Amino acid sequence: MLLTTVLLFSSLLTSSVLAGPHARLKNPKKRPKKHTPLLEVLSTVHSNSTASKTFSPVTVAPKENIFISLTNDEAASVISFLHNQTELNLTAAVDAGAWDNAIEVLDLVQPNKTDALHYLDHNGPLPPRYAVARIAFGATEEPYHQDFIVGPLPISKDSTYASLDWPTTSGSSKIRNYNADDDTLLQWNVDVTATVADIVLDLLNGTATGSDNDDFDIWGIDPLWMEEIDGEQRVILWNTYWRYPSDEDAVFDGSETLLPQGLFFKSDITGRDPSKWKVLGWLYGDIFYSTTEEFRQAWKSPGFVKYQLNLPGEWIGSDQTGQHFLADTIAPPVAVQPNGQRFSVDEKQKYVEWMDFSFYITFTRDTGLRLFDIKYGGERVIYELGLQEAIAHYAGNDPVQSGTAYMDTFYGFGPYAFELVPGYDCPTYSHFLNSTFHAAELSKTHRNNICLFESDPGYLMQRHSSSNYLALTKNIVLTLRSVSTVGNYDYSFDYVFALDGSIETIVRASGYIQSAYYAKNNDYGYQVHDALSGSMHDHVLNWKVDMDVLGTENTFVKHKIAPAVVKYPWANNTRSTMRLERERIENENDAKLSWPANGADMFLVENSNQLNKYGEPKGFKIAPSRGGAGMFLTIQDSPNLLKSQGFAKHALYVTKQKDTEVRSSHANNDYDPGHPIINFEDFFDGESLNQTDIVLWINLGMHHVPHTGDMPNTVFTTAQAGFIISPHNYLLNDASRTTRQMVRIDYNASGVQSVKEFGGKMASGVVNVSSLQPNFWNYEGDVAVRKFPYDPLHPFNDSEYHICPYFLVLLSIASAESIV
Amino acid sequence: MLLTTVLLFSSLLTSSVLAGPHARLKNPKKRPKKHTPLLEVLSTVHSNSTASKTFSPVTVAPKENIFISLTNDEAASVISFLHNQTELNLTAAVDAGAWDNAIEVLDLVQPNKTDALHYLDHNGPLPPRYAVARIAFGATEEPYHQDFIVGPLPISKDSTYASLDWPTTSGSSKIRNYNADDDTLLQWNVDVTATVADIVLDLLNGTATGSDNDDFDIWGIDPLWMEEIDGEQRVILWNTYWRYPSDEDAVFDGSETLLPQGLFFKSDITGRDPSKWKVLGWLYGDIFYSTTEEFRQAWKSPGFVKYQLNLPGEWIGSDQTGQHFLADTIAPPVAVQPNGQRFSVDEKQKYVEWMDFSFYITFTRDTGLRLFDIKYGGERVIYELGLQEAIAHYAGNDPVQSGTAYMDTFYGFGPYAFELVPGYDCPTYSHFLNSTFHAAELSKTHRNNICLFESDPGYLMQRHSSSNYLALTKNIVLTLRSVSTVGNYDYSFDYVFALDGSIETIVRASGYIQSAYYAKNNDYGYQVHDALSGSMHDHVLNWKVDMDVLGTENTFVKHKIAPAVVKYPWANNTRSTMRLERERIENENDAKLSWPANGADMFLVENSNQLNKYGEPKGFKIAPSRGGAGMFLTIQDSPNLLKSQGFAKHALYVTKQKDTEVRSSHANNDYDPGHPIINFEDFFDGESLNQTDIVLWINLGMHHVPHTGDMPNTVFTTAQAGFIISPHNYLLNDASRTTRQMVRIDYNASGVQSVKEFGGKMASGVVNVSSLQPNFWNYEGDVAVRKFPYDPLHPFNDSEYHICPYFLVLLSIASAESIV
Repeated sequence: MLLTTVLLFSSLLTSSVLAGPHARLKNPKKRPKKHTPLLEVLSTVHSNSTASKTFSPVTVAPKENIFISLTNDEAASVISFLHNQTELNLTAAVDAGAWDNAIEVLDLVQPNKTDALHYLDHNGPLPPRYAVARIAFGATEEPYHQDFIVGPLPISKDSTYASLDWPTTSGSSKIRNYNADDDTLLQWNVDVTATVADIVLDLLNGTATGSDNDDFDIWGIDPLWMEEIDGEQRVILWNTYWRYPSDEDAVFDGSETLLPQGLFFKSDITGRDPSKWKVLGWLYGDIFYSTTEEFRQAWKSPGFVKYQLNLPGEWIGSDQTGQHFLADTIAPPVAVQPNGQRFSVDEKQKYVEWMDFSFYITFTRDTGLRLFDIKYGGERVIYELGLQEAIAHYAGNDPVQSGTAYMDTFYGFGPYAFELVPGYDCPTYSHFLNSTFHAAELSKTHRNNICLFESDPGYLMQRHSSSNYLALTKNIVLTLRSVSTVGNYDYSFDYVFALDGSIETIVRASGYIQSAYYAKNNDYGYQVHDALSGSMHDHVLNWKVDMDVLGTENTFVKHKIAPAVVKYPWANNTRSTMRLERERIENENDAKLSWPANGADMFLVENSNQLNKYGEPKGFKIAPSRGGAGMFLTIQDSPNLLKSQGFAKHALYVTKQKDTEVRSSHANNDYDPGHPIINFEDFFDGESLNQTDIVLWINLGMHHVPHTGDMPNTVFTTAQAGFIISPHNYLLNDASRTTRQMVRIDYNASGVQSVKEFGGKMASGVVNVSSLQPNFWNYEGDVAVRKFPYDPLHPFNDSEYHICPYFLVLLSIASAESIV
Repeated sequence: MLLTTVLLFSSLLTSSVLAGPHARLKNPKKRPKKHTPLLEVLSTVHSNSTASKTFSPVTVAPKENIFISLTNDEAASVISFLHNQTELNLTAAVDAGAWDNAIEVLDLVQPNKTDALHYLDHNGPLPPRYAVARIAFGATEEPYHQDFIVGPLPISKDSTYASLDWPTTSGSSKIRNYNADDDTLLQWNVDVTATVADIVLDLLNGTATGSDNDDFDIWGIDPLWMEEIDGEQRVILWNTYWRYPSDEDAVFDGSETLLPQGLFFKSDITGRDPSKWKVLGWLYGDIFYSTTEEFRQAWKSPGFVKYQLNLPGEWIGSDQTGQHFLADTIAPPVAVQPNGQRFSVDEKQKYVEWMDFSFYITFTRDTGLRLFDIKYGGERVIYELGLQEAIAHYAGNDPVQSGTAYMDTFYGFGPYAFELVPGYDCPTYSHFLNSTFHAAELSKTHRNNICLFESDPGYLMQRHSSSNYLALTKNIVLTLRSVSTVGNYDYSFDYVFALDGSIETIVRASGYIQSAYYAKNNDYGYQVHDALSGSMHDHVLNWKVDMDVLGTENTFVKHKIAPAVVKYPWANNTRSTMRLERERIENENDAKLSWPANGADMFLVENSNQLNKYGEPKGFKIAPSRGGAGMFLTIQDSPNLLKSQGFAKHALYVTKQKDTEVRSSHANNDYDPGHPIINFEDFFDGESLNQTDIVLWINLGMHHVPHTGDMPNTVFTTAQAGFIISPHNYLLNDASRTTRQMVRIDYNASGVQSVKEFGGKMASGVVNVSSLQPNFWNYEGDVAVRKFPYDPLHPFNDSEYHICPYFLVLLSIASAESIV
């Protein structure tokens, strides 16, 4: 989440052989592959043999997954192709410096929905595959980034490339990078610090000279600011000092985000010539000094107030602490699956079938796990379901907290969707999937970073009892999960499918808070340690939910539970009562919505032309399901986000589907949020939403004012949000009646008279639970550069990955003539 | 939920030997006791023997449970005592008719908090125990109900009785019963129907003559209405016809609530002389006929519109239906607890200890399960946590739906908190508790109607990963659960304790909807079957949460996340940002609250004088956690509930604790909601809430507009709501650091370097899962009269119970001189 840290970091790397400056993902080291533990079941003697004959946990997708990530071969050929386009003047990522042009990221260009539906529903041809290449152009006084569409794939004589402008609202995928010179900036920070080394030593008790023994890391606002000075737009950076870990807390990741030091400086870093950069002032103890000299004079003055040091220590660690509970040495309950997996997977196509549901999975660098073509009962319900962007907007009395509003797709959810730990992150019996993404001219595979598992959430789906009988139905759900650790925060994403036909999307946040120095910050957070304030912030995560209820002609309706005063024919006087009022959202202009007070409106997507037997339009309801659903930004006109926060100002939005409006945000918006590549607000142009293809953009989030309970880590338990999509007048009855996992017990005064189990089985067999214990030594870590480079000498999480050395491919190709 | 049904029902019983008319709970039949299945674990060879030495699942409560229900002996002696008070003129419940006085319910008078705290915290004496006896006075022209306090217990020469007026707001526990003559009313309904038997046969295709072959049950609004007619207050009842089950759906409980027939009549049933009762009109097809003759003329007219019949059939059943899924014959995952229970129970005192939590349980006839003295880390957090009342307010174009607003404590949650089914309602390894209540001069014990279990909800408590390590902590929770089936609805209540110190209260609703006849009801619900409308309704359930954060001197604060425009010393211009604004709720007048839009306020209970090390007041946060938290009534001035809905007009309330303001509602308010015994709004008298003992009254609920997915049953999955109370600046760090159920995996490029498990264990041993399968044949049903008497000849759910034949005790005492 920290631009300047990434810059600092990559600048460190520039001197190594590992990576180029533009790539957000670096070349990981390789080490031996280990084996996944086999989950052993001693015996399943009681399991139903008929079922195992007829059901297979392996399936074949009915259609090719046209959304699936680029293959390694596709990526390699695209890189090769682009390097042959001499006008791009590309340098291999591994060799590229700040003044070179280099490929940052490759991904699939999502096929146009029209083409996709033609293929999926009408036996049309496979949509042509195109890649998007995100290229950093450093070889210019005005560095910029631009997306190119390359294809069709595989690369052939017909393949071309062009700026990928049509999914933008600005008209161009180009965006200026005002901060391309990361190693220069690192030196600048050190040089600026040198001018006040004595003050830093006095106030902060440490040094930052660019050496290995530095006490402080220096980084600041994200995104950068533009400020008009003397009639000119200047590029402004506010930095602050963050203390590096001490010996005691060295392993813990929070040692930097929990150790702000309270001294800030403002730089004008306009242009690529650092000799023209300027220090524009210092801040300490909420007092601003507009020159270094002024700061120095004040510091020398007798009345200068010094604040308490915020020092590292054991308090930063997340290990077990305090008197443990007697009972806690006993193992807690655990879920087992003795009779085998009940869903089917096509590993190659990343296609899943569970009960009445089926869906395709893909994975992108920007947003990680995505779902496509979610069908229920054979009918598509959701064409596309996936995260778009995640904002974390801070506030504080200091310019760094005040100036921070991360847009996390800049860093990407894909690179940080690390390997999951069986027995902790997911049940040991989970089905794990790998994911691949392509960045810095490398293809990297996260091993086991997606899990799929069935579970019993611990309460029933249906229940009724009477004097004659009980009827009980289990609530067995299928969860698809991935976790992305974007710097300090671990975002856990669940997509939960249930027997009643509902689909719940859940995000939970754990990990370290980004904190603020305590001095005079009372209005912006609680004091949570000796000299530390829990910096208040808003999380807003935006999902695209492209619903298709029985076709693409859909309408968004509000059904209001409205108070009313009514005169009935059977009453002498009027009566206070309530009514169901049905209202269409006719137009995009009316489609910026918030959840109503007291839950008084139901939000539905219906196909108004598809009536059920009783005349009610078939639809699905969209509702908050847990925690801070529907949260949007408190700050409606953020000076940090400017025109890049359009999707985060309401709880949810409805737009007409367009193949040109693919995403609500762009990973490069962060470079220049005042001139974003995609400004979501431009999607709203008054188009009719009446029985047309509509897309929902739904926000989840939390207003987070960290308190001592967030130390050292925020807990998932109280930091979660979800929305649920469930059938509404869609089928003629409750869908969960189809399951066999129910029992009916008829009884009377003489006792139980009959027990009906409907062919469902209770778990059976003998399970060696000990053998299910995960072997934590099998963890392989993972690829990817992290946002907070605690150990600049060992910056990479190491892991299994399938390395494809493009630059070698490239070199060999180059020496053997172009293939085009 | 249906007053007239109860009346009808008890009138049938009057002619039997079983029960008196005033008792809502009847004398169940007795049958042989069965045995609970033992949950067998084949081997736990790997379990930690040290732990089992030091931890015991059995504990001894540090203090007597002064909240525990009356013992059978106490109840017997109170009944005996009251029968000796000749001025009460009591008849034994078993012999009592409509014109007798009889004891309905006995319960404990909750001790005064002052006395309770003196005992709990200061080694004061045990608070004296008193019983409340709810007595129905039928031997008068103006029948009424009244509560009496009896004690101290055990009954001695010092014991007295008096009207229990101090916990009322009306000044008296007396309330008029305008509908005491249930057998008379039954006959009235049959007699009225006889006047239009030909029309009923024609329109509804059936008969209701009071015979065993009746096609229809006749019942209507709850509560009754008062209407001024010719200057006099008259008692008004609107009735309608509900079809009895057919052969196909006979067992299913929904056959009545799903079969309204669309014909309604209005009666004036003022007074106890039915010869003065009048029919005031008929309603069919939304047309009102003010006399029977007018109705008959219309029916005979050629243009008379007849509507479709709403007939029973298989659609009412909840059994498995449709093509089952191939995989569904395989048993789904299941939770096991191979290494034993990790919480301790004092069965006698109903006291529980789990990790850092402890609490006492009690059980009342009105509201079922209640928790007292919830301590966390040895400090009380909640003195009292329990349901107060549950409203289900309907609306519709017909007077029965429009006129229905159940207050379910009238029926009681205790009597309907039936036995739970292991493996479905709760995990097989759950610890089950029994509960006893006293009604109709019988003490009845629900076997296994409360379960306690640990579980893993399927996501972590804490997580963080970096390039060096992963730290993961399990989210193991303790759930306390009971389910009350109040007529058509099954309310499941969970109290969930978590390792981060949070306590979540959850209600879920399943079971049958109460539906409406479809004709012209479009504005009030969806059509859900051939001639059926899902009657829209609001559920509002009110909880008392008497929080004590480090003593009773507490303050309710709102911490607002507020947008702000601020001029900072370090910025030239103002900036749009946000701030934390702290606001006290100073006074009861300001303490009727709703959850803020966009979750922008945090609601906290703090002890403003107890600051943590960093100067922040220690407190707990109260927040919605799932679904329809904080829902309140759409209808703010219900003509049905009148002055009895005061607690249901906002999301939550704060009042100053008073021993005279024990409950927000009274089970007898339903008799005369315009003149309730407790009007919650009278609690608000402008008292200061500043550092005093405060009580929260929190609503959960759902606005429920049933659609086809509610057929045949509403599912828990989408009908749930919860609130969570969690430490806020209370401890100096995240409380979950105390658990051992965490792992830290340190790794680097060479692989995993260390695995720290902190003494926690993963589940181990070999489990015979087959042997854990529940034996459904052990279900024993349960006691209690049900609201919908489908089988009037076998009205009682039969079950194990510990019968104490008071009337025999009484007779023997009477013949052996009084003990007083």
